[in-house]
Amino acid sequence: MTSKQVPHFQAENPMKSAQLFMTKGTGAMSYAENSNWHAMCMEKIWPTVLELVDSMKLPDDDMSIITIADLGCAPGRNTINNVETVLKRVKERYRNGHIPEFQAFFQDLYDTDFNTLFQLFKNSVATIAENVPETLKYFPAGVPGSFYGRVFPRSSVHFVMSTFALHWISKVPSSVLDKTSEDYNGGKIEHERASRATIDAYARQGDVDLRNFLDARVEEMATGGLMLLVFGVRKVYYPYCNTMVNEVKERIWDELVSEGKVDSGLRGSFNNFMHFHYLKDVEQILNSYSEKLIVEKEYVFPFFLYPQNMTAREKAARHASLNRGLYTSMLEDHFGEDITNLYIARYEQALLEGFESGTLTEDETNTYQFVAIVARKL
Amino acid sequence: MTSKQVPHFQAENPMKSAQLFMTKGTGAMSYAENSNWHAMCMEKIWPTVLELVDSMKLPDDDMSIITIADLGCAPGRNTINNVETVLKRVKERYRNGHIPEFQAFFQDLYDTDFNTLFQLFKNSVATIAENVPETLKYFPAGVPGSFYGRVFPRSSVHFVMSTFALHWISKVPSSVLDKTSEDYNGGKIEHERASRATIDAYARQGDVDLRNFLDARVEEMATGGLMLLVFGVRKVYYPYCNTMVNEVKERIWDELVSEGKVDSGLRGSFNNFMHFHYLKDVEQILNSYSEKLIVEKEYVFPFFLYPQNMTAREKAARHASLNRGLYTSMLEDHFGEDITNLYIARYEQALLEGFESGTLTEDETNTYQFVAIVARKL
Repeated sequence: MTSKQVPHFQAENPMKSAQLFMTKGTGAMSYAENSNWHAMCMEKIWPTVLELVDSMKLPDDDMSIITIADLGCAPGRNTINNVETVLKRVKERYRNGHIPEFQAFFQDLYDTDFNTLFQLFKNSVATIAENVPETLKYFPAGVPGSFYGRVFPRSSVHFVMSTFALHWISKVPSSVLDKTSEDYNGGKIEHERASRATIDAYARQGDVDLRNFLDARVEEMATGGLMLLVFGVRKVYYPYCNTMVNEVKERIWDELVSEGKVDSGLRGSFNNFMHFHYLKDVEQILNSYSEKLIVEKEYVFPFFLYPQNMTAREKAARHASLNRGLYTSMLEDHFGEDITNLYIARYEQALLEGFESGTLTEDETNTYQFVAIVARKL
Repeated sequence: MTSKQVPHFQAENPMKSAQLFMTKGTGAMSYAENSNWHAMCMEKIWPTVLELVDSMKLPDDDMSIITIADLGCAPGRNTINNVETVLKRVKERYRNGHIPEFQAFFQDLYDTDFNTLFQLFKNSVATIAENVPETLKYFPAGVPGSFYGRVFPRSSVHFVMSTFALHWISKVPSSVLDKTSEDYNGGKIEHERASRATIDAYARQGDVDLRNFLDARVEEMATGGLMLLVFGVRKVYYPYCNTMVNEVKERIWDELVSEGKVDSGLRGSFNNFMHFHYLKDVEQILNSYSEKLIVEKEYVFPFFLYPQNMTAREKAARHASLNRGLYTSMLEDHFGEDITNLYIARYEQALLEGFESGTLTEDETNTYQFVAIVARKL
């Protein structure tokens, strides 16, 4: 259930521009219920992150406040677990003497379902309520806004994390929506098999966004503070993606348009905000901040969606589940609930048939997760 | 529209306990659309508050962050206007030289509709977005939790305000819901014409809550900081209220029960969380904090609902509107949407008939607004 009533088709404005936010609420299609995959990825990274947390510079004044922020947190349990993992580790450093107080900021876009996120705190032991062990206490706050600009006061955050968020660019480049531009991604929702010009337009936007993100963090991070970045990258610049699985999505939208269920203009005006940065661009951009930021550790993991031994049905369900968590509210906002349900059902069914018959094979070789643990220089 | 689906009647649990939160969303019944009255009250107080803001101690470090917090903010425009009024005044003190950065915390209970509040920021010029004048920039954050406990790190807030919130006690005293107790407020929703024992139970809870509130603020306020408190009080301890207008509410619930539309147990398990503190108790409690807090100014205003020259229809509409803003979501949560709509409609109609025929007269002499501007001692 979305919190907004959206007309299924806006005759007067078929070019309604798409909005970016994770699926709302706690229902079967919500982000909150479809994000276990993210937790699996994090498990691999924690040991190194926590080692660096141990050596991180912290304020030496007993009355200080230590601040942890999750940027692009999305309304799920993962964000709380991640923040609390860091929090506990930092608290271990204050076993003797006066313990500083901790504030944790959960940041995401204005349209994010903060109500659902805050309900998770309501019954959490880890807030500042009575009878909570000192090692778990902190003051949570939600911060609405875009992390591609400033969201915190200067030098105020000691540990920043942003996981699986920076591959959501701030906007679909306007030229991609412009029929007169060579960048135009006509008659498509995804840009995975798009023209080189379309991909270039996405890449330019991605680079601008990443620099805006880093500019803001340089201002906001306390000196000696740490930042954990995890987001999708690709190793080959072009073509963006060869994954047959993703080709299925476009085929289903083609069907829905040809059946008259979806207006072609409305379909054309929705373009995916997700764009995996080109690894070399990312490294070059990070390097250009070397005066203020230093990359302590860097990893590039293959994109890991599910174990090899899953059945066709399990794999189809996992793909559909991930897509539900990421896209349902956005699709409903643009196309209405009925079309969204139809699309997701057909997508899962097509994957199942493809995996079972062997006509669908996966080529994930161009998609990776980039992990960097970055320190704010003193 | 509430964000939760609530069964209209829970056969297995007719004693469902009531939850406290302002009416959600932005519809005709929302708090956001029914709180103009609060703004009117604030206009009378601002000149004095701002004068004190001018002399308030602020951090002298140029890199400092100045923090403003609205406690029990509710999801309306008023909270943003109030915070920005203070913010602009503080910023005027930094016309020359380096301006500190400002963080504003909007705090309310977990069930508060923060999504609606954050939507108000989305299109506000007053956030940190580009092209915003320096005098208006700040970093907003939402803080979920109870202000009857700690919600901020120690010594971190420079200006605290809590307006029209402290007359919402933390819970209906359990003895008021206990059929075996002399405090039992049987067969009623309001406690305005309740027994002395019921009123005593409410008053005890109110005193505990007010002390818990002040204990938390003493920890959280920066020394030299200021706090603005505005909340309902009564000058006569008992009876709590003689207002004929409020008697109408109970009559309508009687009708709904006798017509079989509302289960008497369900009605009995809902008791109003609003309790106007006894003025003398409030003053005594504030005095007991004189080592840490000093009351700079105190006012007691008659409860001001509408101008004298309003028509019966306008007055009935104003009462109904205020009740919509305060109670609709809570009533829907407890009784369901249909009963709530029926109750509000009958309430407005009964007031209209009463005002027109002259059978309803108002006696507001026992209800006042208490205003205190309190400094955190150095």
